[in-house]
Amino acid sequence: MSARQFIHLDGPLSMKHGQLGRATLAYECWGELNATRDNCVLLFTGLSPSAHAASSLADPSAGWWEDMLGPDKPIDTRRFFVICVNSLGSCFGSTGPASVNPTTKQPYRLDFPVLTVEDIAHAGKALLQALNIDSVHTVVGASMGGMTALSFALSYPKQVRQLVSISSATRSTPYAIALRSLQREIIREDPLWQNGQYDIMGNGPVSGMRLARKLGMISYRSGEEWEQRFGRERAPDFGETDNPFGIDFEVESYLESHANRFIGSFDANCYLYLSRAMDLFDAADHGGSLQASFASLELDKALVIGVKTDMLFPLNQQRALAEALDRTTANVSYHPLQSLQGHDSFLVDMDRFRPPIAEFFNPSAG
Amino acid sequence: MSARQFIHLDGPLSMKHGQLGRATLAYECWGELNATRDNCVLLFTGLSPSAHAASSLADPSAGWWEDMLGPDKPIDTRRFFVICVNSLGSCFGSTGPASVNPTTKQPYRLDFPVLTVEDIAHAGKALLQALNIDSVHTVVGASMGGMTALSFALSYPKQVRQLVSISSATRSTPYAIALRSLQREIIREDPLWQNGQYDIMGNGPVSGMRLARKLGMISYRSGEEWEQRFGRERAPDFGETDNPFGIDFEVESYLESHANRFIGSFDANCYLYLSRAMDLFDAADHGGSLQASFASLELDKALVIGVKTDMLFPLNQQRALAEALDRTTANVSYHPLQSLQGHDSFLVDMDRFRPPIAEFFNPSAG
Repeated sequence: MSARQFIHLDGPLSMKHGQLGRATLAYECWGELNATRDNCVLLFTGLSPSAHAASSLADPSAGWWEDMLGPDKPIDTRRFFVICVNSLGSCFGSTGPASVNPTTKQPYRLDFPVLTVEDIAHAGKALLQALNIDSVHTVVGASMGGMTALSFALSYPKQVRQLVSISSATRSTPYAIALRSLQREIIREDPLWQNGQYDIMGNGPVSGMRLARKLGMISYRSGEEWEQRFGRERAPDFGETDNPFGIDFEVESYLESHANRFIGSFDANCYLYLSRAMDLFDAADHGGSLQASFASLELDKALVIGVKTDMLFPLNQQRALAEALDRTTANVSYHPLQSLQGHDSFLVDMDRFRPPIAEFFNPSAG
Repeated sequence: MSARQFIHLDGPLSMKHGQLGRATLAYECWGELNATRDNCVLLFTGLSPSAHAASSLADPSAGWWEDMLGPDKPIDTRRFFVICVNSLGSCFGSTGPASVNPTTKQPYRLDFPVLTVEDIAHAGKALLQALNIDSVHTVVGASMGGMTALSFALSYPKQVRQLVSISSATRSTPYAIALRSLQREIIREDPLWQNGQYDIMGNGPVSGMRLARKLGMISYRSGEEWEQRFGRERAPDFGETDNPFGIDFEVESYLESHANRFIGSFDANCYLYLSRAMDLFDAADHGGSLQASFASLELDKALVIGVKTDMLFPLNQQRALAEALDRTTANVSYHPLQSLQGHDSFLVDMDRFRPPIAEFFNPSAG
């Protein structure tokens, strides 16, 4: 059972580097839109999640932000109408490289236009228009979703009152670019990638995706966490095989099982496009400089959360974002957290993330 | 012209997990052994360097530690007889998986016994015996070489007076294991690896080696360095190709050129063996616990240097090593350095590394 809903856009969807003749956007929602239609919280996702951020009657399976979203939770669906949109370019219902191009009747594959974070934000706006929602109470995103939320606020300043940016930044560092560039190259070097022409319904570059996901996992977590969690613990079958390069350590076994869970679910070309979109994003592009870009913002309030062990979006980037917002926004909160789980902390260290988000959405409760 | 010399061991060489019928060890040396034969500095290398640590009359090309080693340099070859040995298992003259097995007349490939850091230290001892050198003034190593130097001091406590350990540790963290495990898997997944049976003289798994080296580079440097060095600088041909996943950023171009320089020079199977040896090393194995292991040390003096931006051998490991040494060694210096270049700092940030090493070898000069 799925709570996923779809909007099929009427006209073509313009992108920064091309146009889609038709586009579909998948989303899920929770709560009720109020009579004045001003209680909408728009949630953009990181690179890999679907729109299933939380459970609902229609789909009781746990979502990727189950602890954050629901009745009486930090983003309280008794008060807010929450929409989570599957990113344009992804493969969980929204149009992306794995979707059929209506002109050719074949999947887009590499004919899909180069994807940008701005395009994903623009698609979110198109979804709202289709739902007849003019303005957003708060736009929220973590990781790539934080870039998208910021891009949305920059592009539609009069239609957003509040911004929540988590473990994100105004642009990617060269280190994050290098890590993602290598993941993409690993996928493209898998002979089964076939320059993107693999059978979309088949397995595609399974090995490349497994290796790329392992590199992703390494970059999403932290050495401190793994030292505490694994130390030098050996894998259960250590020493029992003749393979001199088998899985000897528990950390290797952990990466293997996580990567294998991922590869069946994500299309390789979509992964390549979304990954590149993060590299290309630079909020300074909007207005020519970061200051000029941010001058157009009309936010009442913003929250920036970062984590000290995050190597992809290091804490100095979160502080820089908060300082840049502070020049144009009356009420900016910056929360550097001590989580050990690196970039992924917002998905797992809920005890640290719940309080600042609950406080932001419901300051009087404190 | 090469300054490389060879010792062909007379008898078989015992390893922790097997035995080599015959073994050759390649080395270079600088300076003169004194009459009392007690001025020998033994230098073990990291995973990838050869024994060519510095230039000499016989080979004037710059070595990998050119600034550190030579007349009037921190390790002064007017005073010391310095030997740098190519690690057992490597491919620059010493016996390793790419060498011909005298029994089969074929390269060992995966028939080479599982390699350990202890084996590399043991081979260094065999070299000294062949050269009729009983004891070592100082054993020195960085990265894997630091593990080897420590292993040497633990195994031959009466034959070593001083230890210098740089950006190394008593054991590998799970994070470092994960990074190296993924590099090995990337190489093994290259179809040209052929389960190790590629033509040793041919190209072998070139793509896997290039990708693994890029991951190595990422783990050897630091995000802070690359932010200062590259920022969002674009590659020269940015936007000029139709490849949607081409080299757009300068950091991608940098990794590409460095990786391409490496892959022609290093045998893939040797890389796999040496990489695994680092994972397996744990100085606590020597005596059953770290404390019991270190109790056997008889050092007069030790120097431990680490770098705050090193993600492979983080600073807390260097401090732990220095503290463990301090329990049994009268004179232990610990130098945490502020270098930006991560694990590779000892190869490039010479202005920070020269002073503590010069002071260690020549304290009266200060």
